[in-house]
Amino acid sequence: MAKITSRSPLAPESFPDLPVIKGVRFASVAAGVRYAGRTDVMLAHLVPGSTMAGVFTRSATRSAPVLDCQSKIGTHTGDGAAIIVNSGNSNAFTGRNGIESTRAVTSAVALAMGLPETRVFSSSTGVIGEPLPHGRITDKVEELVAALDESAISGAAQAIMTTDTFPKGAMATVDLPGGTVKIAGMAKGSGMIAPDMATMLVYIFTDAAIAAPDLQTLVSGINDKTFNCITVDSDTSTSDTLLMGATGASGVTVTAKDEAFAQALQGVMLDLAHQVVKDGEGATKFVTVNVTGAASAADARTHALSIANSPLVKTALAGEDPNWGRIVMAVGKSGAAADRDTLSIRFGDILVAENGWVSPEYQEDLGAAHMKQPEITINVDIGLGDGAATIWTCDLTHGYIAINADYRS
Amino acid sequence: MAKITSRSPLAPESFPDLPVIKGVRFASVAAGVRYAGRTDVMLAHLVPGSTMAGVFTRSATRSAPVLDCQSKIGTHTGDGAAIIVNSGNSNAFTGRNGIESTRAVTSAVALAMGLPETRVFSSSTGVIGEPLPHGRITDKVEELVAALDESAISGAAQAIMTTDTFPKGAMATVDLPGGTVKIAGMAKGSGMIAPDMATMLVYIFTDAAIAAPDLQTLVSGINDKTFNCITVDSDTSTSDTLLMGATGASGVTVTAKDEAFAQALQGVMLDLAHQVVKDGEGATKFVTVNVTGAASAADARTHALSIANSPLVKTALAGEDPNWGRIVMAVGKSGAAADRDTLSIRFGDILVAENGWVSPEYQEDLGAAHMKQPEITINVDIGLGDGAATIWTCDLTHGYIAINADYRS
Repeated sequence: MAKITSRSPLAPESFPDLPVIKGVRFASVAAGVRYAGRTDVMLAHLVPGSTMAGVFTRSATRSAPVLDCQSKIGTHTGDGAAIIVNSGNSNAFTGRNGIESTRAVTSAVALAMGLPETRVFSSSTGVIGEPLPHGRITDKVEELVAALDESAISGAAQAIMTTDTFPKGAMATVDLPGGTVKIAGMAKGSGMIAPDMATMLVYIFTDAAIAAPDLQTLVSGINDKTFNCITVDSDTSTSDTLLMGATGASGVTVTAKDEAFAQALQGVMLDLAHQVVKDGEGATKFVTVNVTGAASAADARTHALSIANSPLVKTALAGEDPNWGRIVMAVGKSGAAADRDTLSIRFGDILVAENGWVSPEYQEDLGAAHMKQPEITINVDIGLGDGAATIWTCDLTHGYIAINADYRS
Repeated sequence: MAKITSRSPLAPESFPDLPVIKGVRFASVAAGVRYAGRTDVMLAHLVPGSTMAGVFTRSATRSAPVLDCQSKIGTHTGDGAAIIVNSGNSNAFTGRNGIESTRAVTSAVALAMGLPETRVFSSSTGVIGEPLPHGRITDKVEELVAALDESAISGAAQAIMTTDTFPKGAMATVDLPGGTVKIAGMAKGSGMIAPDMATMLVYIFTDAAIAAPDLQTLVSGINDKTFNCITVDSDTSTSDTLLMGATGASGVTVTAKDEAFAQALQGVMLDLAHQVVKDGEGATKFVTVNVTGAASAADARTHALSIANSPLVKTALAGEDPNWGRIVMAVGKSGAAADRDTLSIRFGDILVAENGWVSPEYQEDLGAAHMKQPEITINVDIGLGDGAATIWTCDLTHGYIAINADYRS
């Protein structure tokens, strides 16, 4: 693995001060799954009565832990729940052994915590296709259980990192008629990031009381507007997992129709999604691609993804080159409806091209200045209809090559 | 533009010794369209009676010269024909000015050569979205016409290069019952290469007599098996053009059903297509991706393109890393049918993974040795059906980033 020594230039100044979510406790440990000298396993425990929801990769070659989580997420009991996550090995494409490793880990946690196995969820992230040395994890379960602490979420966010250069956290507090509820979440992910869903592990917790079907509705709907709208390199992981748990410890009940809660949760999920892009392998630019005026919303998404995934657009962004010609190319190749002569392109507010030609008012130095910023906005209007979509991405740099030509994932 | 100082390590030793194709003459000149100190315009003239066929980009934002060629290619006359090509500026996304520039260039050639305008085809390649200084080209038309020479094809292949590190040529001689015919072709292209069709200009000539509809049938059919099966970076150009002219000067008639001729032409087109990949921007590896056992041929192509376009697969190839986990990932994300547990992967003849797990006979050092070769073969069997497809690609290196983070195309 390449040594990732420097923090992304787009990283937030520090890990946020996440609130305690009543009913959830965390622990992390250095188990030596693959890495030395760092923590690599985290455990979260949720009190009895907690509900769980999840969203998972749609890869046809998804990993054993993902399949295991999917089989459990629909079953709801009054018992508590646990999430155990290791970094360093994804336990993906590991055949029958992979299933056995997942079972070994989850049953060890179930036994140690007095939980049914159906309430123990696990994730693994890291190298694909190598056997998970699950004994290194099960050996640490007792130590993890003993260390559980409601204020230990930041250590947990550290333990799940792979090529990440910073741990990712986000929070919200929502005042509702019945009282105040809190949301806190963590994520990891920096490469192999593309929708369906981005390559990533995400764990979000709230002390609201939310029935499991409502929680699933909220998480699935908001996922489509957040994590499914980011791309680093168009590559989709075999391990993508988002789990959310609601402990109910606040005593405040929330339903899927509660707009204030949904907005707060969307804020947390978008914040985490943006942090994943900002930690995109080698990223030096955070890029928002807005497409409007497409024939449909689906067409707008197709155009926006074509722009966001184009290696030529992404290298131009890396070079701070206001190369709108490559954006025209990406729109043209996307397969969605477009007309060269109705297309307009703006960098931020700067009108670059319209009516099939560079704008007479465009000044190259203004475009170049926009490109020098760490956060860049590309606005494309297709000029055909009302379809709109936004995708967030990053640039493609020497750093991406350096990380991925060496790192075995 | 980045200075491309070094020839691709995958380049052939030298430009092939292309035969004279009776009835076609070539010239090239330094017109200073964008580049200094090199030729950048080529002219080809075909004798009266020649037939023409073409295949073009399907980009929704295709360039003015492409649209002009497409409008002309269906019209057949007994007149001769001409092809004029400039590098340095693609005359794409140049609005009404682009149409006027194309007309200025083609009508200057028509006038100088006594041809109807419908028989003058043009291509432009290079930067998108900047006005083509067409006067620099029209000023040189007389000089070009005076220099036409049947043995000047290699100079023409030089003049159409942009970021290419070597000129590309290929040839074949076909013995038919009626006599011997010859085929000679040239191509340019090294970035913005992806099917539909690869970003590229290709000009092929034969002295066979082929009716225009037959020539079009041959070219379109073989294009799907050659140029539409290569990808460098998944980006499709707005200028892709393949033109083929048949002069009939050999006196030997060929039809679309002539297998020997079709095979020879396919050999020429595949050779040129492979050369384009071998000159892929920054390429150090030529990679053949064979997918078999897919549920359909279309599924096989989808899987093969997903592997060939995956940044994580391409960077692993650059790092000479036998990282079959990333191939599993690319199959899983493609959207075509796959089953993790029926998948098998070979590097060349080396069985790496089967039945959802690394093969017990796989030795990592053999996989690593295969990756060190300049030409790598990835064989993936999906294990579901009879669908098969082959895609050719290259690796993704620091060289690609260096070229594209600076070069304005």
